[in-house]
Amino acid sequence: MELTHLDETGAARMVDVGEKAVTRRTACAQSVITMKPETLCMICEDRAPKGDVFACARIAGIMAAKKTSELIPMCHPIPIESVKIDIEAVSDTQVRIISTLRCSHKTGIEMEALTAASIAALTIYDMCKAVDRGMRIDQTLLLHKDGGRSGEYSRTNE
Amino acid sequence: MELTHLDETGAARMVDVGEKAVTRRTACAQSVITMKPETLCMICEDRAPKGDVFACARIAGIMAAKKTSELIPMCHPIPIESVKIDIEAVSDTQVRIISTLRCSHKTGIEMEALTAASIAALTIYDMCKAVDRGMRIDQTLLLHKDGGRSGEYSRTNE
Amino acid sequence: MELTHLDETGAARMVDVGEKAVTRRTACAQSVITMKPETLCMICEDRAPKGDVFACARIAGIMAAKKTSELIPMCHPIPIESVKIDIEAVSDTQVRIISTLRCSHKTGIEMEALTAASIAALTIYDMCKAVDRGMRIDQTLLLHKDGGRSGEYSRTNE
Amino acid sequence: MELTHLDETGAARMVDVGEKAVTRRTACAQSVITMKPETLCMICEDRAPKGDVFACARIAGIMAAKKTSELIPMCHPIPIESVKIDIEAVSDTQVRIISTLRCSHKTGIEMEALTAASIAALTIYDMCKAVDRGMRIDQTLLLHKDGGRSGEYSRTNE
Amino acid sequence: MELTHLDETGAARMVDVGEKAVTRRTACAQSVITMKPETLCMICEDRAPKGDVFACARIAGIMAAKKTSELIPMCHPIPIESVKIDIEAVSDTQVRIISTLRCSHKTGIEMEALTAASIAALTIYDMCKAVDRGMRIDQTLLLHKDGGRSGEYSRTNE
Amino acid sequence: MELTHLDETGAARMVDVGEKAVTRRTACAQSVITMKPETLCMICEDRAPKGDVFACARIAGIMAAKKTSELIPMCHPIPIESVKIDIEAVSDTQVRIISTLRCSHKTGIEMEALTAASIAALTIYDMCKAVDRGMRIDQTLLLHKDGGRSGEYSRTNE
Repeated sequence: MELTHLDETGAARMVDVGEKAVTRRTACAQSVITMKPETLCMICEDRAPKGDVFACARIAGIMAAKKTSELIPMCHPIPIESVKIDIEAVSDTQVRIISTLRCSHKTGIEMEALTAASIAALTIYDMCKAVDRGMRIDQTLLLHKDGGRSGEYSRTNE
Repeated sequence: MELTHLDETGAARMVDVGEKAVTRRTACAQSVITMKPETLCMICEDRAPKGDVFACARIAGIMAAKKTSELIPMCHPIPIESVKIDIEAVSDTQVRIISTLRCSHKTGIEMEALTAASIAALTIYDMCKAVDRGMRIDQTLLLHKDGGRSGEYSRTNE
Repeated sequence: MELTHLDETGAARMVDVGEKAVTRRTACAQSVITMKPETLCMICEDRAPKGDVFACARIAGIMAAKKTSELIPMCHPIPIESVKIDIEAVSDTQVRIISTLRCSHKTGIEMEALTAASIAALTIYDMCKAVDRGMRIDQTLLLHKDGGRSGEYSRTNE
Repeated sequence: MELTHLDETGAARMVDVGEKAVTRRTACAQSVITMKPETLCMICEDRAPKGDVFACARIAGIMAAKKTSELIPMCHPIPIESVKIDIEAVSDTQVRIISTLRCSHKTGIEMEALTAASIAALTIYDMCKAVDRGMRIDQTLLLHKDGGRSGEYSRTNE
Repeated sequence: MELTHLDETGAARMVDVGEKAVTRRTACAQSVITMKPETLCMICEDRAPKGDVFACARIAGIMAAKKTSELIPMCHPIPIESVKIDIEAVSDTQVRIISTLRCSHKTGIEMEALTAASIAALTIYDMCKAVDRGMRIDQTLLLHKDGGRSGEYSRTNE
Repeated sequence: MELTHLDETGAARMVDVGEKAVTRRTACAQSVITMKPETLCMICEDRAPKGDVFACARIAGIMAAKKTSELIPMCHPIPIESVKIDIEAVSDTQVRIISTLRCSHKTGIEMEALTAASIAALTIYDMCKAVDRGMRIDQTLLLHKDGGRSGEYSRTNE
């Protein structure tokens, strides 16, 4: 096994995916943001009758997915076919963001999924930082992928 | 206290910083990426004589800092004055990324610091994912900030 | 009077604003989108309990304001200090978008206001085009500006 | 009929176009900008021997088409195959911009055509605003589209 | 003397300009593109009554100047105050592009000037490559700069 | 022969590549940067044990390739499949940058290769300009291309 993004001299390169087959690919990733219970209350109260916090995070995640190849130097540009961001409070202090993306391309869409989840989480941080500077983002990881030569991957122990 | 990025109807807005004073501001944030020991070995061996993994992550983090206001919907564009990204193996499975940014502006530079650390971590993920799909990013948080009306903040319990 | 964005040979240039004073500036612009009454019903029903159409348009407008100097070739980059997008149904077939922006800079922020309103309107078009391809956007215009050497401007006959 | 850009909870999503067929698609859109007759004279005089106003608007429109998926949150990135922007004075106070775009893709190119026309119109506004702040942009609409499952559309009553 | 963009370990960083004074700065750079005489004829003929080749290159150069900090990793974002691109045939096979930029900032605007000239030259290449693939770009260099601590620089032997 | 990027009135357009066949395409371009021998020494010394100058230029070139269609107005967006940047000192004052890119598309990838080489060269300029403002970039040209209707091209006399 080797780090394919480096050539034999260690120089970074965008690996050649030209010979790979176009297949339908899915990737699903997550981030979890932890905050004070009062902060989560404010978001949810705001959200009930009105509130754009989660809407803003969701849209930021979708737009960031489309910017992945501008952000991650060795990423290939990918014609993304769908993006869905689910945001849910999973305890009284934690919000979990799950991104699900699809494409039909020669290379996978994992980085887009991870970028979408990360930027959605950072957007929640931004919108709430005036009241809670100590929020933290953890568990940014790939939940699932399928399609492509390396086949299916599912994280089992999360 | 209230979520200043929402108006009284809950609609997202870019808050007005026009009346705030220009002050010199610093922000320092981190992310920690956990991987298999073999993966970290490969990065470090590659790095010794050659290797662009950490260089690539560092540069991606610096460039991402400059894109923060494009990524985070309610962020103000900021004339960043310095960015430094330190990347260090802190155990045989963990790499810690610390970003330090400065500006002289009416609003703080925390989001830029958090974005830089996150994207640097995602870049390491990207460059190593062919050998270790289970890597995860945790502890993305603000370590320190100073400058501005809200004054100094330091995270104590990390 | 002359077209200052052209030099004496007619060549486009970004005019020199270096000698102008930094002043606090405001600009307020609008667009109006006309659709079938059924389409507006769908947006509003969706919106009541849930619905991201107006949230999405608002966020798109705010983010587009920050991209104005990338879109309009002769525009100067401006450190925007606030953006607010108000979206309101003004009849059973029309939605009016009003953008209000502020900055403290050597040149005005009118183009940012017009771009924000236009892109917010186009986002509504996009989100509803599957049910109403005949929507149209009219009355994209500057409502008000102040600050700077040319002083205050208000459109009177709208 | 439903708003496909919203899921069943009203959350915005980028709809999945993965199962749609790649077909050759065309879209044609317009904007009309109204100005004082003196302003239009200046553009045209400038243009005759020299003048970059229309050239600048044309190029801005073409470049904006390529940025559509960055501007409109739920738009898919599309490999645009051609863009043409026609700009013509249609009266002594009105300039009409018509954009014609083509692609071979799973989703249509209407938003790119509307964005191109809108940004070209805003560019004319920008280049002439020093002499005519009261210009307005109207009739931004889709003239024609073909290709894809929904087939051909032509606006009849314009 | 040292390479200030590298820290003491050789890692790239965006150097801190926070303590530097804001001064008015100018930079002037050039590129020269060499082509077959037939190619230059075609551009100039096209240009006389119509022709967008030089207009397109000029606009591309101006827009690229605004993207410099996105392209050159260690560049600071700069509030550019003016850009002018002069393009002129200097022999029957050579076109010279001169960019002149100004800002009032803590760091210089040389990279913006060099980027503007380079991208303008590449745009000419692009627009003519169908008839002359062997064009080449040379003499991309800084002609003049002033402002800032390092003072004035003029290239004497060009 | 004609300039295909201009229509019959001389107006710029993005030419229609819709009818062209998708073929595997390669392009290889170069730039040469000339500096003082002391400057090149500094880069190489820095590089040996540490040093990010060439790494930074390489990454900048790869990322710029992906931005080509944003920079060059009439360029089509292209799904790049690989990018490799080789940087080598070819004398005691000259560094040569060679970019090699591949795609499978309806149009060629020459502009991406030229842009990658140019921006990598400008990045070296940026990182060393504090010690050597007189550096210059020459010989930016296409070395080789293949694929597509116009077939293979190799520059023979360089």
